[in-house]
Amino acid sequence: MKKLVIGIDIGGTNTIFGFVDKTGNTLWEGGIPTKGYPNVEDYLAALASAIKANLAIIPDSKSYEIVGVGIGAPNGNYYKGTIEEAPNLEWKGIVPIINLFKRHFDVPMILTNDANAAAMGEYLFGAAKGLRDFIVITLGTGLGSGIFVNGDLVYGHDGHAGELGHLIVNPNGRQCGCGRRGCLETYVSATGIKRTVFKLLADTMYPSELRSICFDNLTAEMIFQAAKKGDKIALMAFEYTGNMLGRKLADAVTVTSPKAIFIFGGLAKSGKLIMEPTQKAMEDNLLGIFKNKVKVMPSGLLDRNVAVLGAAALVWKQLE
Amino acid sequence: MKKLVIGIDIGGTNTIFGFVDKTGNTLWEGGIPTKGYPNVEDYLAALASAIKANLAIIPDSKSYEIVGVGIGAPNGNYYKGTIEEAPNLEWKGIVPIINLFKRHFDVPMILTNDANAAAMGEYLFGAAKGLRDFIVITLGTGLGSGIFVNGDLVYGHDGHAGELGHLIVNPNGRQCGCGRRGCLETYVSATGIKRTVFKLLADTMYPSELRSICFDNLTAEMIFQAAKKGDKIALMAFEYTGNMLGRKLADAVTVTSPKAIFIFGGLAKSGKLIMEPTQKAMEDNLLGIFKNKVKVMPSGLLDRNVAVLGAAALVWKQLE
Repeated sequence: MKKLVIGIDIGGTNTIFGFVDKTGNTLWEGGIPTKGYPNVEDYLAALASAIKANLAIIPDSKSYEIVGVGIGAPNGNYYKGTIEEAPNLEWKGIVPIINLFKRHFDVPMILTNDANAAAMGEYLFGAAKGLRDFIVITLGTGLGSGIFVNGDLVYGHDGHAGELGHLIVNPNGRQCGCGRRGCLETYVSATGIKRTVFKLLADTMYPSELRSICFDNLTAEMIFQAAKKGDKIALMAFEYTGNMLGRKLADAVTVTSPKAIFIFGGLAKSGKLIMEPTQKAMEDNLLGIFKNKVKVMPSGLLDRNVAVLGAAALVWKQLE
Repeated sequence: MKKLVIGIDIGGTNTIFGFVDKTGNTLWEGGIPTKGYPNVEDYLAALASAIKANLAIIPDSKSYEIVGVGIGAPNGNYYKGTIEEAPNLEWKGIVPIINLFKRHFDVPMILTNDANAAAMGEYLFGAAKGLRDFIVITLGTGLGSGIFVNGDLVYGHDGHAGELGHLIVNPNGRQCGCGRRGCLETYVSATGIKRTVFKLLADTMYPSELRSICFDNLTAEMIFQAAKKGDKIALMAFEYTGNMLGRKLADAVTVTSPKAIFIFGGLAKSGKLIMEPTQKAMEDNLLGIFKNKVKVMPSGLLDRNVAVLGAAALVWKQLE
């Protein structure tokens, strides 16, 4: 029997799953909506039957054996197998996902947050192969991070380590969804760069195609397209975003001294527009002993579903 | 034969060594000046003969066997056994301490910076026994830190991780010895609190006994004594220092999620004056999921020579 791991990415809107082999090949992907199941047990029953239905129809399905389930989810607690107070999910409080899902699959299961899963994917299957100390930053609606130290993920005593998106840039800064002010993700994320565009539209008088788009409609992709056409506001927004990220990465380097920092997510696909100001600001702000040692680069899995791959990687790493 | 480890603390002015058994008892301490040896080989020869002379005269000396040497030194590189560009030592560039000292003692040797050694001492012999994730902050002339993750020290890819003293509080802030501005240790350290007193003397008109002392003469101990007598400026300086430290500890918790943070050094001996504002500012600034979980407390080794003990602990941990 060939071995497969089920990788599951629980997002606010949809849940994606995939069957991943030991080399990081995803044989099949499927999904169900996350929304619409106020009762988490109904949701898990629907997820389990979708997975089982898909497992039955993969080519040569009888030759595979499922050896584990890895789950990436917002506020996923590695130690307890619970999702805790996740603001974007319908289930409130502390949800014992692993205990409940074991009723459907009797195999080893691991849960962590999506950014930790991404870091594990990068380690086993991406650009971080062979590195013991590195950081993965995921830029989506918010900013997530997964930190490797001594060849393993940093979970911290409670399973919640690695929240670089909530490093405080400015105690009097932008309002954050976490209830505080000035967190890094209010500046550096798809939402952050949009807020920066609106600040620049307010502060300057440069003409910009972005002046005709309202806040609710503006996307990071539109800012990227405008920047490619030379739109000054869009270019300044990328510069500002990279600068903020670079400054805080300099702080993060001071703590764990990684060999490299990998950027994942939509904004990372903007390439040099985000990478160059980030690397420059980081270097400019690094303590002397760390200068010219740390690479900032795009994830090696930019075109893959890293959340599913990383969730599966959690299990493969443990089976090693 | 009973086993002993030699712990060595290389400071800018003096070098202290001690013979430490497995339970953390220091049987004997001695020392030589660090200054006055422009050639590092001369220094190490003098250190080796002082150690050998002391070893010969400890009670019951023939019943002991030396099983290792642990060294704590500024800018000590764990991976390479080198001291690198240490601003307070006479030897410039990269000094291969371990290779050179092995000519004198043919036993396993480990080198790291003094704050990492302190963290290892706390782990084996102090208040961090049994914890896998914690941070030790050492407050002296500067601010050093040693970070434990998953039950081991964080060295980073280059051996220099854990420089919390150089987290940037304010990019336009106080000038730091590292050549940058606004590093945490310019606010939180014996020197930092002194700078804060001078800022407060400038900004306010409160009467204070500290107004009669010049910058060169003021010590952290004088500020502590003034605070105990109710001196308003001294009290404000402790409040300000703890507030700055607490804010940055909130950031550090966000990265590695420690169970506890131990404060070591002269300022830690000021007790509540520093601990209370630190704990409060940390709590006020923590992300929700970390609130009411992380203890800030004095080191369990406040009255011991933690640098020597910690240096020896490095070896004991490895021998485990």
